[in-house]
Amino acid sequence: MVRKFTKLKVIPLGGLNEIGKNMTAIEYKDEIIVIDCGLSFPEDEMLGIDIVIPDITYLLKNRDKVKGIFLTHGHEDHIGALPYVLKKLNVPVYGTKLTIGLVEVKLKEHKLNNVKLNRVKPKDKIKLNFMEVEFIKTTHSIPDACSIAIHTEIGTIFHTGDFKVDYTPIDEDVMDFHRIAELGKKGVLLMLADSTNVERAGYAMSERTVGSSLDEIFRNAKRRIVVATFASNIHRVQQIINAAYKYNRKVAVSGRSMVNVVNVAKDLGYLTLPEDILIDLNEINDYSHDELVIITTGSQGEPMSALSRMASSEHKKMEIEKGDLVVISATPIPGNEKTVSKVINQLFEKGAEVIYDDLADIHVSGHACQEELKLMHRLVKPKYFMPVHGEYRHLKQHAELAVSLGMPKENIFTVTTGCVVEFDRNSARLGGYVPSGNILVDGLGVGDVGNIVLRDRKHLSEDGLMVVVVTIAKENGKVIAGPDIISRGFVYVRESEDLIEKAKVVVREALTECENKQIREWAYLKNTIKDELKNYLYERTKRNPMILPIIMEV
Amino acid sequence: MVRKFTKLKVIPLGGLNEIGKNMTAIEYKDEIIVIDCGLSFPEDEMLGIDIVIPDITYLLKNRDKVKGIFLTHGHEDHIGALPYVLKKLNVPVYGTKLTIGLVEVKLKEHKLNNVKLNRVKPKDKIKLNFMEVEFIKTTHSIPDACSIAIHTEIGTIFHTGDFKVDYTPIDEDVMDFHRIAELGKKGVLLMLADSTNVERAGYAMSERTVGSSLDEIFRNAKRRIVVATFASNIHRVQQIINAAYKYNRKVAVSGRSMVNVVNVAKDLGYLTLPEDILIDLNEINDYSHDELVIITTGSQGEPMSALSRMASSEHKKMEIEKGDLVVISATPIPGNEKTVSKVINQLFEKGAEVIYDDLADIHVSGHACQEELKLMHRLVKPKYFMPVHGEYRHLKQHAELAVSLGMPKENIFTVTTGCVVEFDRNSARLGGYVPSGNILVDGLGVGDVGNIVLRDRKHLSEDGLMVVVVTIAKENGKVIAGPDIISRGFVYVRESEDLIEKAKVVVREALTECENKQIREWAYLKNTIKDELKNYLYERTKRNPMILPIIMEV
Repeated sequence: MVRKFTKLKVIPLGGLNEIGKNMTAIEYKDEIIVIDCGLSFPEDEMLGIDIVIPDITYLLKNRDKVKGIFLTHGHEDHIGALPYVLKKLNVPVYGTKLTIGLVEVKLKEHKLNNVKLNRVKPKDKIKLNFMEVEFIKTTHSIPDACSIAIHTEIGTIFHTGDFKVDYTPIDEDVMDFHRIAELGKKGVLLMLADSTNVERAGYAMSERTVGSSLDEIFRNAKRRIVVATFASNIHRVQQIINAAYKYNRKVAVSGRSMVNVVNVAKDLGYLTLPEDILIDLNEINDYSHDELVIITTGSQGEPMSALSRMASSEHKKMEIEKGDLVVISATPIPGNEKTVSKVINQLFEKGAEVIYDDLADIHVSGHACQEELKLMHRLVKPKYFMPVHGEYRHLKQHAELAVSLGMPKENIFTVTTGCVVEFDRNSARLGGYVPSGNILVDGLGVGDVGNIVLRDRKHLSEDGLMVVVVTIAKENGKVIAGPDIISRGFVYVRESEDLIEKAKVVVREALTECENKQIREWAYLKNTIKDELKNYLYERTKRNPMILPIIMEV
Repeated sequence: MVRKFTKLKVIPLGGLNEIGKNMTAIEYKDEIIVIDCGLSFPEDEMLGIDIVIPDITYLLKNRDKVKGIFLTHGHEDHIGALPYVLKKLNVPVYGTKLTIGLVEVKLKEHKLNNVKLNRVKPKDKIKLNFMEVEFIKTTHSIPDACSIAIHTEIGTIFHTGDFKVDYTPIDEDVMDFHRIAELGKKGVLLMLADSTNVERAGYAMSERTVGSSLDEIFRNAKRRIVVATFASNIHRVQQIINAAYKYNRKVAVSGRSMVNVVNVAKDLGYLTLPEDILIDLNEINDYSHDELVIITTGSQGEPMSALSRMASSEHKKMEIEKGDLVVISATPIPGNEKTVSKVINQLFEKGAEVIYDDLADIHVSGHACQEELKLMHRLVKPKYFMPVHGEYRHLKQHAELAVSLGMPKENIFTVTTGCVVEFDRNSARLGGYVPSGNILVDGLGVGDVGNIVLRDRKHLSEDGLMVVVVTIAKENGKVIAGPDIISRGFVYVRESEDLIEKAKVVVREALTECENKQIREWAYLKNTIKDELKNYLYERTKRNPMILPIIMEV
């Protein structure tokens, strides 16, 4: 066998130099396994885009090698791209019970019913020909999260997944320190670790601390309580339900994803529900305000979410009223600060009391801070290290953290998505690049919106457009109708009749000039119209609408 | 004289339920004075808009009454709308030396040279017929900031302006506690006070504390230092220069607004510059890296700012290099988190060290936190209170803070922009509304972009457009050319030929149907084309491009 085939390759396909879209391929001999398959949300400049998924060209080219997708947990940035990827590459999917439960909901929505889903338990090992994939219990802001170890004859790769160190998790199911320590003792070749919170000193607080804050808030509340949080944070939901039960309140659930997740979690036994505590949102009027808690989506101020609709009187079943107490049990994800602030303002304007991030301890992060990361590095003590899940600033600082713990710089691979890192027993090196990047999903289109379309959308969004139509005679090139001008997103047409009339004059003059020069090539005519009009409009308005000249010939 | 003419009116024209665009009119008998004249930056949904200024319809309707615009300080959200407002309402402008210096730069850029600018000093009083306007020294993140007291026979109105309580300001020019206390003792009818930081407990730190952090950073720096901050924070700039001088570094200034402000501040004596310390940005290559400090704009990650251009290799005169130390001496203004983060990532990728908000004490706020606000309330002890400068959440919490200090709820006016509050000696009440709101500035257009244009821009930005052109014969209504279809911002045309061809078929069928029904009204034809095409495109793509049908008749 040729030597190069014995390299163990690690190929991040997403999640490096970005937040979200997590996906890593691991390849050995003729087997590839994929860890996670996440989406990310569009950047501001990706106008009109719904979601972003990883480019899987490399996997499609090697489709026979791909043995499965192994999921660390059920967050969108780890499972959200599955429906799109599985349509092109139908391979078995492995995950813990809750993770697979959430995947099932997703696949149902996409009408995908021929996928082989495999429920695993922590400590389970899936044996392939050349790799063995082991799930290891960890803690995160969703239950049933796992780290994943991949055992090969070259060595063991340990991927932390998203994690925090919670010594007192709500479900009493602590992370498997012993197995991680055992792996570390035996020797780990490479660790890939979550970098999200590397900029924060100290420790993330235990999820349990939120319980005490909620308890105090519920104890003092006189009227209706509305709590917004991440749907997937089932332990948070459990704590809200516990507080509701303690203070004799019923719980209604609002928001599609919250309803979905609560149902899945309930069915699979991840929520402990006192009898009859859940009521339908339609039934809330049967109870007095001090008997009610509503758990809702919308903690990020998403304009279409249940909380935003409650705050702007657009929700069909309930509206925020004077005296309601709204608890936003989350912090804004970077980029969402203004939408969250807008909802808070609306809630205050409705007369609600609002408790949010700045005012109380009602949220804790699900990602390891510096001291937790150090614990992980010390336990696993890998030979090589690759920081993952973070923007460049996070990856770089995670690398520095590793160096501060004594890891040699040359053993750290701070790489980008698409970069191949090759390992053998004694060494590691960069091994080139595979195709990678953002595939934009817009409506039904997957990948049919690219830079040109986005550039046009940006141009249109800033200055609108002007369409100029002229009909000319086939036989002599004379203008026989038009120029007609239509503009959108540029100026109020009614107040700018003069501008439009003058623009027509500019077009006519441009056409006359072409006629005098006896030029009849359409491309030339169009460019002349475009240039003259552009100059005229810029001079008059200091704006640059998109100009679309159309010539009809009859 | 009729009784209603003796009311003293306070009319906020901007800055309430929003951040920025600060402007308040105060009217008594036949005199109106205006405090501040600020701009705000466009919200995300104001696509393509450059800046936003207040609606001054009320002032224009009462133009003979308006005696002047009185400026508290030189920040954009207090002076930025002046060029636009003065073009329509040329009244005298009053402000302290630095404030007027900054206004002059602004008016020059707008080629406005017939404005009467009046330099005042703290303690100065401007006497009108029925009002007397007094400037009172305060402290803020720009030198020469003032509170303003308006004395009338009805009573005194005290407007704090933007302020913080800095006991150790860099220029040793502390706020005039004594005059404020004196006013409070004599009796203040109404206080309007800055609400920006009401959500923060405790005190804002003194600007001087930043000096110690900078000193430590400069002492340890081995190579080039780049410091980004707000151009107008002249005391920050002074402290950077002081640290540069101490550690034998020359200072170059980059970014248009930074160059402007440093020049004005230097000329007016607000910057103390050791001899020869300033060098031109063109000269930096004459010095070794450990002899240089560059002060630059771009602390908010603005894409066209000097720092962003240095980080993305688009700056003409310098580029960030490996080993540079970049200090971002500012916190992101809400909404700018992602652009700031992007610049930080780019700087790290260039190999720079970056010190920012999360990592060191290199910025302090210029706005009063809770304890400072309490001091102000206690000193002024007004009869009535109107929280200003803040979103609704801030105004509401500022009202609650006043209540916690013993002010009766009914004496607090938490109002919106445009709301008139009327006072006489013994009472106060809401007195209706005047026109108010956002005037959008886009290029040379002031107010010519409104909701319809913005709605079109939003539509175009999300799904692009499709133009359909058909030429029909005048005599019989038969189609003689087209349909031609052009799309932009919708799909890649090259990869969607099939879609476009089928769209043409849909249009042809719609036209044939109209022909069969012998309907020739253009509006009907256009609507039929639009509806059929819309349905077809949505079904195929789940997108809704703007559809523009154009009919030419020959």
